[in-house]
Amino acid sequence: MTSPAAPPLDIPALLSALTLEEKAALLDGADFWRTQAVERLGIPSVMVTDGPHGLRKQAGGADHVGLHDSVPATCFPPAAGLASTWDPHLLARIGEALGRECRAEEVAVLLGPGTNMKRSPLCGRNFEYFSEDPLLAGELGAALVDGIQSQGVGTSLKHFAANNQETDRMTVSADIDERTLREIYLPAFERVVTGSQPWTVMCSYNRINGTYASEDPWLLTDVLRDEWGYTGLVVSDWGAVNRRDAGVAAGLDLEMPSSGGSGTRVILDAVRAGTLGEKDVDRAVTRVLELLNRALPALAPGQTFDAGAHHALAREAAAASAVLLKNENDLLPLARTGGPVAVIGEFARTPRFQGAGSSQVNPTRVDSALDALRAGDREVIFAPGFAIESGTADPALVEEAVRAAASADVAVLFLGLPPAYESEGYDRDHMDLPAHQVELLHAVADANPRVVVVLSNGSVVSVAPWQDRAPAVLEGWLLGQAGGAATADLLYGAATPAGKLAETIPVRYEDNPALGNFPGEHGHVRYGEGLLIGYRWYDAHRLPVAYPFGHGLSYTTFGYDGLTTTTDADRVRVTLTVTNTGPRPGTEIVQVYVTDPQAAVYRPEQELRGFARVTLAPGESERVTVELGRRAFAYWHPALRRWTVEAGAFGIRVGASSRDIRLETTVELPGDDVTPPLAAESSVEAWLAHPAAGDWLRANLGDGLFHTMLFDPRNGQMMRAMPLQRLSRFPGFPVAEPQVDEAVARFS
Amino acid sequence: MTSPAAPPLDIPALLSALTLEEKAALLDGADFWRTQAVERLGIPSVMVTDGPHGLRKQAGGADHVGLHDSVPATCFPPAAGLASTWDPHLLARIGEALGRECRAEEVAVLLGPGTNMKRSPLCGRNFEYFSEDPLLAGELGAALVDGIQSQGVGTSLKHFAANNQETDRMTVSADIDERTLREIYLPAFERVVTGSQPWTVMCSYNRINGTYASEDPWLLTDVLRDEWGYTGLVVSDWGAVNRRDAGVAAGLDLEMPSSGGSGTRVILDAVRAGTLGEKDVDRAVTRVLELLNRALPALAPGQTFDAGAHHALAREAAAASAVLLKNENDLLPLARTGGPVAVIGEFARTPRFQGAGSSQVNPTRVDSALDALRAGDREVIFAPGFAIESGTADPALVEEAVRAAASADVAVLFLGLPPAYESEGYDRDHMDLPAHQVELLHAVADANPRVVVVLSNGSVVSVAPWQDRAPAVLEGWLLGQAGGAATADLLYGAATPAGKLAETIPVRYEDNPALGNFPGEHGHVRYGEGLLIGYRWYDAHRLPVAYPFGHGLSYTTFGYDGLTTTTDADRVRVTLTVTNTGPRPGTEIVQVYVTDPQAAVYRPEQELRGFARVTLAPGESERVTVELGRRAFAYWHPALRRWTVEAGAFGIRVGASSRDIRLETTVELPGDDVTPPLAAESSVEAWLAHPAAGDWLRANLGDGLFHTMLFDPRNGQMMRAMPLQRLSRFPGFPVAEPQVDEAVARFS
Repeated sequence: MTSPAAPPLDIPALLSALTLEEKAALLDGADFWRTQAVERLGIPSVMVTDGPHGLRKQAGGADHVGLHDSVPATCFPPAAGLASTWDPHLLARIGEALGRECRAEEVAVLLGPGTNMKRSPLCGRNFEYFSEDPLLAGELGAALVDGIQSQGVGTSLKHFAANNQETDRMTVSADIDERTLREIYLPAFERVVTGSQPWTVMCSYNRINGTYASEDPWLLTDVLRDEWGYTGLVVSDWGAVNRRDAGVAAGLDLEMPSSGGSGTRVILDAVRAGTLGEKDVDRAVTRVLELLNRALPALAPGQTFDAGAHHALAREAAAASAVLLKNENDLLPLARTGGPVAVIGEFARTPRFQGAGSSQVNPTRVDSALDALRAGDREVIFAPGFAIESGTADPALVEEAVRAAASADVAVLFLGLPPAYESEGYDRDHMDLPAHQVELLHAVADANPRVVVVLSNGSVVSVAPWQDRAPAVLEGWLLGQAGGAATADLLYGAATPAGKLAETIPVRYEDNPALGNFPGEHGHVRYGEGLLIGYRWYDAHRLPVAYPFGHGLSYTTFGYDGLTTTTDADRVRVTLTVTNTGPRPGTEIVQVYVTDPQAAVYRPEQELRGFARVTLAPGESERVTVELGRRAFAYWHPALRRWTVEAGAFGIRVGASSRDIRLETTVELPGDDVTPPLAAESSVEAWLAHPAAGDWLRANLGDGLFHTMLFDPRNGQMMRAMPLQRLSRFPGFPVAEPQVDEAVARFS
Repeated sequence: MTSPAAPPLDIPALLSALTLEEKAALLDGADFWRTQAVERLGIPSVMVTDGPHGLRKQAGGADHVGLHDSVPATCFPPAAGLASTWDPHLLARIGEALGRECRAEEVAVLLGPGTNMKRSPLCGRNFEYFSEDPLLAGELGAALVDGIQSQGVGTSLKHFAANNQETDRMTVSADIDERTLREIYLPAFERVVTGSQPWTVMCSYNRINGTYASEDPWLLTDVLRDEWGYTGLVVSDWGAVNRRDAGVAAGLDLEMPSSGGSGTRVILDAVRAGTLGEKDVDRAVTRVLELLNRALPALAPGQTFDAGAHHALAREAAAASAVLLKNENDLLPLARTGGPVAVIGEFARTPRFQGAGSSQVNPTRVDSALDALRAGDREVIFAPGFAIESGTADPALVEEAVRAAASADVAVLFLGLPPAYESEGYDRDHMDLPAHQVELLHAVADANPRVVVVLSNGSVVSVAPWQDRAPAVLEGWLLGQAGGAATADLLYGAATPAGKLAETIPVRYEDNPALGNFPGEHGHVRYGEGLLIGYRWYDAHRLPVAYPFGHGLSYTTFGYDGLTTTTDADRVRVTLTVTNTGPRPGTEIVQVYVTDPQAAVYRPEQELRGFARVTLAPGESERVTVELGRRAFAYWHPALRRWTVEAGAFGIRVGASSRDIRLETTVELPGDDVTPPLAAESSVEAWLAHPAAGDWLRANLGDGLFHTMLFDPRNGQMMRAMPLQRLSRFPGFPVAEPQVDEAVARFS
């Protein structure tokens, strides 16, 4: 291992010294987790390792899917949990802790975070992603990157891009129009890249509009580098390389894992055949060497981390990640003293705290909710209720659970998805809890209606079919290794829930926007819903939801008032007062949505454009300001192919959730020029609307039959919708086809 | 005008005699409505004219949009009405009548029918289209073509293809995947072409996946001619030509209207430049001459038609077109004698009986419902209630209407869309009735709850917001010139309603499948809902609807029983007994839907695959048989690119509507081979499933680490989803990349 005191690699010198064969080899992995070394030139190998919410460094023979144990590491809540915190500061602190653990294990790059959008509730890997909203995903991803990289350890922003399903993920083409890519599927990546410069970006397995992400020059170079200014390295997802030479040319620098020399051979063959430039190879090698220079200073043996402190941070994060969906009659928090508490459900004893696949961490310890609850003052009667992986009810376990509920003051029922339900590599079949768990709830609620349901699930589960049986529901997502203790903290009020949903919980699977378009078939998946994913869809279709995006209760309440805005050329400052109007300290997540009621394109009803987190003592007020840049009002203009703000009024909605808007106002913004260039096939209407061309056309139209037809009150609209060029071919039209061509040249 | 006794044109001789300039000129119109003549060779000019539900032959100076009057002709119900008859036999009779009127006016080709799908309720031209279902649209379009052409008069099947909106119709690209085109947007055309060989097919204005229909060789030649065997001529929609030379090459034979020589020049330049073959020109000229040979025999002056008989047919058709949506407490039919009837609504006096744009017929006469109702035995109190084109209520008219309702036994309220709401050339903004009409309904219903609403609208209007105020609702669509008399026939029971909805009436606009994807923007419209248009969408999303596809009440009732099926290799015969279980003679439309509960692709919940119409006296029963060919069970395989039946069980649902299924059974069918060819990027799962390649792969996998990983109970599914080629690049994988390539060659 290179000592941290070693001088940085002299990249220009190395580029001269390396043979072409050595350069090509440097663009391939050495094994599953390590980069290639070139010992004769002192180029060391470094290790990269999964995953976003905890280190997964395999100790023995390496493989992709965790058959071999990895070294113990702190398992923080996965992204599905962390996203509900809406707390970039917390994510940065977790990132710092992850960085420290990487240093202790001499890991150069941690492979995460994943900022793909939650397009369908069924995506098997949703637990690793943040949100259905790109702003929220981007802000949280950036915070995690900042935290990790602050420790001199790299990140890998993944999976770039449009990897929103596991089915056929290796080959499927995500067919998405550019506006949808720009407004929904790319902004979270854009935010992290432009704001936080992750050391690496990991290209995804899938194709986008037919082109593999691993060999897409538009994605990896035009957008990522030329537009966003990315300066780091692009690494393949493990096994994402299709044609290695095309990848190098497109901007895929490093192939992982090792291709066993195959990728190297393809590169060498292509350079020798003249179909790949050596300068493309040099560029990629430069990025590999730059990565080493960034990573080497922090790599030294003997570094350690404080596992206890990290566990405490994981507990804090877990408490902040849970979302209190409902709490009728203030059933929660439970009093610290009182009658017996029935704790029901195997998940209380055997917590499900992370997902499966590349992100499986070997935790330093695991807190179970059962142990944590037993540590309190109230008597706990435990009944497992079911076997987690079982598909059917066990009558004896149900009976035991019912007895426990009947003899207790309150029943806390831990339900959730068995681990096999969600994983990297495949998607879910449905969004329901196992039926026997729901049956258990009915049986328990029949015995004791004071039921608190605590959920463990990496992605949304339907709650509408059963939630009327539980006065309180705490959505725990996957809470990491300290989730059990955090759950007890929340149930007893040692912590106050503050999490808000980063994804809508629909009433039914059939309501979801990707229905019929997920996961596609025969190599293609149509993103038919366009911009309308998540709450954008439910809002557009005026669909009821079980719980809206942004929803989450507290043990206290918050008032909103005093909304003001100040507007200048570059931004809008939205300021309001939040007051803790309830009996306890608590934290509120204030959400700012923007609406664009009049636009030349279809726009979602409202879009999250900013948020703030504020912690207040009972009765305390605070002025909260959220800044919205011009981008918060812009759409991607499909014809001009740039971000565009249309002049006019925009609505500002401030709310406690996307469907609990408390304050509204309007701002007026100056607009960008949105006159698309005129073409021969532009409509007469567009020609008439053009400042100069309109005068020219009116002057030439004359006042004959066609003038009459074009401005006829009944049929004029139809005539004016015709392209000028088409009309010029009609017998008698006063502007001839060549004149139209001249006018195009003159006015566009 | 050529005499019908003239011998047919000698096409080979003419092709030799015509100069290139004359040939090119023959491919252009002579004016708005006539083909070119070549007098020196005796090639006559013939006239083509709008439109599908009545002749619109302009007498004076021709123009596109009907500013000039056309000669009087019978105005039959437009397609929106006729579609509700589900009666091919009736449509054939109307076609015969239209053909006779064409002969009387020396018209060679009637420009219709239009068989585009009703994708959005807002399409301004829906009144000219039949249905949201391609089977129904195809069967009815074919019947109309058969009828017209039986008279020696041609038709023009339009608008080919995917012209499902008016906004930007001249340039918009309908972006649709092939399976959706094949299963939804093309089958109605396919049915008419293959079964009825319309003399002409009219290409649409729009682009499909970026290519103008007027210059799309895939559409106009590969699909239309090579696959469907089309032998007629392709004509441009009026003004649909973009690049005329590309059009000729692609299979667009005739440009209409005259381009004033522009198209001819482009063709000549291209032939001279060698970019367009003279054989392409000859092929198009041949089709023009073939059209003349087909048309000339029927063209002779002095032919007449029986306007009275055609009006009677229009009345019969109108009565069959109306759909009785609801009829609480048998409010309808009205007794022939009794207290006064309040007839309210200007539409009763001034019927709206057809749409606007190219299909506006100058009717031979117009029956108003008011006159027809006044001809009955009951006293009629008329109040106009509103001015049709007014945007607001007139309090005096409302008051008069309320007085009329209060003093009557029953109020028949004629509501509908003002003509300006729907037209060729633009789309609707919303699907509501004018608000003041709904307010009038409330006022009338307050005065007299016995309200019958009669609707006049070319496309769906929302009924959910107001229909609880009207115990009976008769959906009249647009009923043609005899609609008023037919309405009276229906209201008094001289005719019994039998129409069924050819399009779903959704509860709300926000429920509709094209929301957010209609009408597109900046030149593109994404058909994001894919196959899920109409009832296919409402079924998939389990959405309540106001009235489902196929719904329609009668004054009698029908029982269904005795479902049997017989299956052979080519078809399934579905037989059942329908019984008139009510008090009156009546006609039932029996619908057969097919389901494919298990398929390798996403399939709609159910699809209409056959229907039958049966007229029965009270108590009478009839065995009804509907034949389903293999195509009724097939889907378009996206990878194999052909119609494919998967072996296995299919459901047969027989119903009185898509949501009133009365009988169900299952049939088993043998399947086509659906094994897609193996490719290097096929998944390991696909390789293992292949009969021969599976054995090869299993033999080569060995029993090492990768075997363990591939068949691991927890992660094996994810590993097997990887393409074999990708896996072969992993270090240590027992099958090397070149072996995979060899295997592809061997097994695919």
